[in-house]
Amino acid sequence: MTAVLFDVFGTVVDWRTGVAAAVGRFAGEHRLQLDADAIADAWRSRYTPAMRRVSTGERPFVPLDVLHRENLDGVLEELGLDPGRFGAAALDELNRAWHFLPPWPDSVPGITALKRDYIVGPLSNGNTSLLLDMAKAGGLPWDLILGSDVTKAYKPAMEAYLRPAAMLGLEPGEIMLAAAHEADLAAARKAGLATAFISRPLERGPGIPGAGIATESWDLSVSSITELADLM
Amino acid sequence: MTAVLFDVFGTVVDWRTGVAAAVGRFAGEHRLQLDADAIADAWRSRYTPAMRRVSTGERPFVPLDVLHRENLDGVLEELGLDPGRFGAAALDELNRAWHFLPPWPDSVPGITALKRDYIVGPLSNGNTSLLLDMAKAGGLPWDLILGSDVTKAYKPAMEAYLRPAAMLGLEPGEIMLAAAHEADLAAARKAGLATAFISRPLERGPGIPGAGIATESWDLSVSSITELADLM
Repeated sequence: MTAVLFDVFGTVVDWRTGVAAAVGRFAGEHRLQLDADAIADAWRSRYTPAMRRVSTGERPFVPLDVLHRENLDGVLEELGLDPGRFGAAALDELNRAWHFLPPWPDSVPGITALKRDYIVGPLSNGNTSLLLDMAKAGGLPWDLILGSDVTKAYKPAMEAYLRPAAMLGLEPGEIMLAAAHEADLAAARKAGLATAFISRPLERGPGIPGAGIATESWDLSVSSITELADLM
Repeated sequence: MTAVLFDVFGTVVDWRTGVAAAVGRFAGEHRLQLDADAIADAWRSRYTPAMRRVSTGERPFVPLDVLHRENLDGVLEELGLDPGRFGAAALDELNRAWHFLPPWPDSVPGITALKRDYIVGPLSNGNTSLLLDMAKAGGLPWDLILGSDVTKAYKPAMEAYLRPAAMLGLEPGEIMLAAAHEADLAAARKAGLATAFISRPLERGPGIPGAGIATESWDLSVSSITELADLM
């Protein structure tokens, strides 16, 4: 193994807590009564369908920032709120919540430990500027950042795994994907990558049946990135 | 200023010493009498013309590793040596000397200091895997690496400066290029970037008249990356 690449949203960072906190600040500034956790969940639920429209060719590639921003409009409309009443600047700022999500407590120490012996980087649907902001703010010590705007492909499309491998000058089998989502791992395996399941039972909030439990067998299965570093 | 991006060959790393050392090892292994410094210079002299054939559209984009490898064949032939006698593996390994060039003594401390307040990364004609190998081996603490294979453009083409800016989500004026070569700085200025001249009088070896002296006025002009960090 030469490189360990990471899914980011949910695996390295806690998107739900980060987005809900930003929604809470937004609600306070605009004197709205909003269920911040529910809005974070609703926003995230539009993520996969939006990327799928790119992957199927229904629309050309656009960066994830653009998809997140469109999805925010959709969430507000679903709540009966006209996005036009807030102004583009306020919504753009709320959209940047996805750039500044907090790492899980084991992420920085785990990635730091792995960096000693492996190339470490994100293999994420996030765009490069998003992943860079997140790394600078959270102290994620990536060796390099190749966002989906570099590969012009969204996971689980095969190109999203194969193009980074080619740019690193590596065979797919020299790369391990670490992810909390089995669909992502299944696609990575199909592309020839090794797989590590990271259990993140709280990703979608507390009390969700089956959360954080793998249903398939992966090359490694661990409960934290520090545990992954210890095993490798 | 938000980001400080660096020319790499000559500005951050000492290509002549690194390449000459690799040529010396190669000569020893093949029992050849070679002037390693002269070969490093000859190899480097083919660099700009090779990229120009891509920039003018005479040939499609190919990664710098490919150009370096072709240029190595040319250098050997110029010396009356048939590249075919060495085998592709030995020449590929010699070609990888460009991946493992030693940083100048001030590079790692200077970039580390700048990283506290700025995004730091290469803005180099090197491909991503080359720049990654170099960073891992030399301890260059880049925030991100976007090689010329990402931008598909070689400096001094405008796209080589503008595409990284776009991927970082920055205006050109929010980026400073630090470089030891005035043609690079002039193109960066034309693209709207701020400019810092780093004097590297020994880049082409000792005793070269005018080496390391700027002939134009740049936003900053310093004799090391640590001095640049102190000024900013």
